[in-house]
Amino acid sequence: MIEISELIKFEKDSSIPLYVQLFERLKELISGGTLVHDVKLPSIRHLSKELGVNRVTVVTAFKELENSGYVYTKPGSGTFVSNSYLVSAKNHHLQNNLVLDEVYTQEYAYLINNGQVSLTESSINFASATPTPDLFPVDDFKVVLNEVLERDKGNAFGYQDSQGYYPIRESICRVLGKAMVTCNPNDIQIISGAQQGIDIISKALLRQGDYIITESPTYAGAIAVFKSRGAQIADIELCEDGMSLNVLEYTIKKYKPRLLYTIPSFQNPTGYSCSNHKREQLLKLADKYDLYIIEDDYVSDLDFQDRKYLPLKSMDKSDRVIFIKSYSKIFMPGLRLGFMIVPTGILGNVIEAKHATDISTSGLIQRAFDLYIRKGFWDKHSQFMYNIYKERYIKTTNALDKHLPSGVIYKKPGGGLNIWLTLPPGFQVNTLVNICASKDIVFAPGKIFYSSNASQKLNSIRLSFASVYVENIDHGIETLCKTIGLMEQKNESYRNLPIL
Amino acid sequence: MIEISELIKFEKDSSIPLYVQLFERLKELISGGTLVHDVKLPSIRHLSKELGVNRVTVVTAFKELENSGYVYTKPGSGTFVSNSYLVSAKNHHLQNNLVLDEVYTQEYAYLINNGQVSLTESSINFASATPTPDLFPVDDFKVVLNEVLERDKGNAFGYQDSQGYYPIRESICRVLGKAMVTCNPNDIQIISGAQQGIDIISKALLRQGDYIITESPTYAGAIAVFKSRGAQIADIELCEDGMSLNVLEYTIKKYKPRLLYTIPSFQNPTGYSCSNHKREQLLKLADKYDLYIIEDDYVSDLDFQDRKYLPLKSMDKSDRVIFIKSYSKIFMPGLRLGFMIVPTGILGNVIEAKHATDISTSGLIQRAFDLYIRKGFWDKHSQFMYNIYKERYIKTTNALDKHLPSGVIYKKPGGGLNIWLTLPPGFQVNTLVNICASKDIVFAPGKIFYSSNASQKLNSIRLSFASVYVENIDHGIETLCKTIGLMEQKNESYRNLPIL
Repeated sequence: MIEISELIKFEKDSSIPLYVQLFERLKELISGGTLVHDVKLPSIRHLSKELGVNRVTVVTAFKELENSGYVYTKPGSGTFVSNSYLVSAKNHHLQNNLVLDEVYTQEYAYLINNGQVSLTESSINFASATPTPDLFPVDDFKVVLNEVLERDKGNAFGYQDSQGYYPIRESICRVLGKAMVTCNPNDIQIISGAQQGIDIISKALLRQGDYIITESPTYAGAIAVFKSRGAQIADIELCEDGMSLNVLEYTIKKYKPRLLYTIPSFQNPTGYSCSNHKREQLLKLADKYDLYIIEDDYVSDLDFQDRKYLPLKSMDKSDRVIFIKSYSKIFMPGLRLGFMIVPTGILGNVIEAKHATDISTSGLIQRAFDLYIRKGFWDKHSQFMYNIYKERYIKTTNALDKHLPSGVIYKKPGGGLNIWLTLPPGFQVNTLVNICASKDIVFAPGKIFYSSNASQKLNSIRLSFASVYVENIDHGIETLCKTIGLMEQKNESYRNLPIL
Repeated sequence: MIEISELIKFEKDSSIPLYVQLFERLKELISGGTLVHDVKLPSIRHLSKELGVNRVTVVTAFKELENSGYVYTKPGSGTFVSNSYLVSAKNHHLQNNLVLDEVYTQEYAYLINNGQVSLTESSINFASATPTPDLFPVDDFKVVLNEVLERDKGNAFGYQDSQGYYPIRESICRVLGKAMVTCNPNDIQIISGAQQGIDIISKALLRQGDYIITESPTYAGAIAVFKSRGAQIADIELCEDGMSLNVLEYTIKKYKPRLLYTIPSFQNPTGYSCSNHKREQLLKLADKYDLYIIEDDYVSDLDFQDRKYLPLKSMDKSDRVIFIKSYSKIFMPGLRLGFMIVPTGILGNVIEAKHATDISTSGLIQRAFDLYIRKGFWDKHSQFMYNIYKERYIKTTNALDKHLPSGVIYKKPGGGLNIWLTLPPGFQVNTLVNICASKDIVFAPGKIFYSSNASQKLNSIRLSFASVYVENIDHGIETLCKTIGLMEQKNESYRNLPIL
């Protein structure tokens, strides 16, 4: 049996402290599978003697390992390698960065878990529409977190008002003023992200069997909520300037829905936007047919080509629009914070639904984000993210203009985080996903954004550029486009086969 | 018109910095209503001149006011008193401390908003079953928060695994081992509090019209979820040792429910516990009739009189029990964190429901709490809370033994946070609530814990001692008991009136 101490060599002249060296080396041995789960590590006394280092060095390294989840201690028996943690830790880490996004669905997870989409650290990730962790303003957020803890102490951790911490509702109203949406803190409901907002509205307004209108394709997370609520989805094909108003009115008359769900600006997944003219008409229809509209303001702030779309809420004279805003795309998705502007007529039901859902959103996070806005960090950071995304947008659309084969249809969205490619009819998207994955390029197949299965909808893909570093964009798009081109050629040659 | 500067006097010899004095004085003027919303404050230059202080003093005071939400600035126009914040701030603060609890329902809110229950800072609060903010381990939590930010940086804020951060699932399993519940990190689903757990299970298992069995009375937040889901509630009267097994089997046969919701130990609101014998039988029935059981482990750890109840999950051989645990009562309710142990057969549905609900629980909070457990803070703090609550329990039961009038029935629960008083039939609980509130004593009327309205259920109240300082308990209980006694006397004298 090999002594663990034999596997550890120190660089005694290095500037890296010995305990860090020991910690790093043990971590390697665990990650690499040399030390498997539930193996007992040597005692502190034994290891310090064998390695010729101070006991404190070993104690500190073990403590670090434990804090990082690599080992655990049983009082009185010693230190053990964590059970199954590291087996899954690597995948886990990759999943965090590459997959766990709002498009995660069982179907998509299935592709990954079955190895149909492989994940490596070098993957170029067009699947995730969220910022990479290196863009998060962690230092500024740390400042406000500590200031709030100092200021509010225990009050930050008590039960909070279900509608939300009052000062943050005030701060939000001030920020919104700049986006031309006027509102009052009393109209605001704080939520743990847009996903929860959709869930709460569904609880407040939908009963089993009720109809809801959605665009088609649309955000998979919204479809999941409406289905889970037992609602019937009447989906309307989304055109480049929004849904057809005729089809919409026909559908409303036929199904008498209570609710319509739309992402009017830079829609997810298509990037399409509803024209300002259609927005006005949409509001008129809502008024005429007594309908509430969920306006999912996904990323309307990311207007890169001066399209100047008006939020539905800014034109909402008859209080029909529920405006939902997430901070996941501009700020930090793991924070789980967002808000809704709720029409007065349904506010009571909404607060009650929020209370039944999770009582309130974390008080600490609400208070910290409030201070983040009040200190001016938010304005600074949203401008920073706008610039980052704009650069990625331009790089991506340029690469597409350069490399895209002729049979592929795409419309420049002018903003947002997503681009929708429509491939030739009958194109094998699953095969494309697999081939690209083998070349370390991942993206979302279009079919996961549809609420019903129809074969004509299977020839699309969504490219998100939010997570892709500028230096990888051209290579990624070129590889994707070449693969499409090659598959097309093959397909053509099949098609051109003489009929026997 | 009065100059604001005339209302401000400094104590120039005081050790309190001038900017703090200015901040405090302006705060008073705003809170007191002298400066009303949207009033413009004097310019920094003007005020510093009038007051004879450095500009930096005024700037700093204004900044503090802004950070606390008392004022806001419009770039280029100046500083203004916050719109309506302070009008509601005082009530808001009181509500946070006194009312916003898991028993908050529209009905209860109605009592408060209509002044039927008055709230003052000197109220003795038997309505809230949660710890007061002074008991929260804010300093230790600050340590782990900062360590996590240092260690994980942006990764703490990315999308997280919907099932939960793996290391915390591991830590939880280790903590649970001490409570004799064995489980595997893969069986754990992290949730944003027990309320969300109940909501997610309902999404995963209940369709509109499905039956669910609950105890009667029970936790009002659970009733709200089941009703919101469109489920039919079959409620079974809770006896002092649990539901009658005969009634339970009869009800199962009649309604064929999918799910049973129970708080077996120190139930909320009654404090009653299911006997260990009945627990075994309950599991047998679940197995026989293909039923899942939600075991809401509210406060089983608070066993003050050595009752040694066994968690259902610890005896659950056929994987029928969904074990839900909140950290709101022992730790900090505003954290919004808890977990479930989920039977393998429904785990996929549960993860999907969690994703549709809010994608994931805050990554920062999960990581910080994981480290809190790993550093041993949790063991220390839960022991601390146990001792605090035990003292309050003993003081409350002693006071009841001493003061309770003869017509009131109550059973010593032996643990938990709640005591249930059954008043004589026909007793006017609403009147009692009002009279006590006028004497600054608040508590929850029993009727809010019932899913159906039946007049015989209206003569009970719930006393929670979690939030009441030991020195106030005897006075509070004595006043309550005397009021009950006086009302009873009056009632008796009515009853004794000769029939004409």
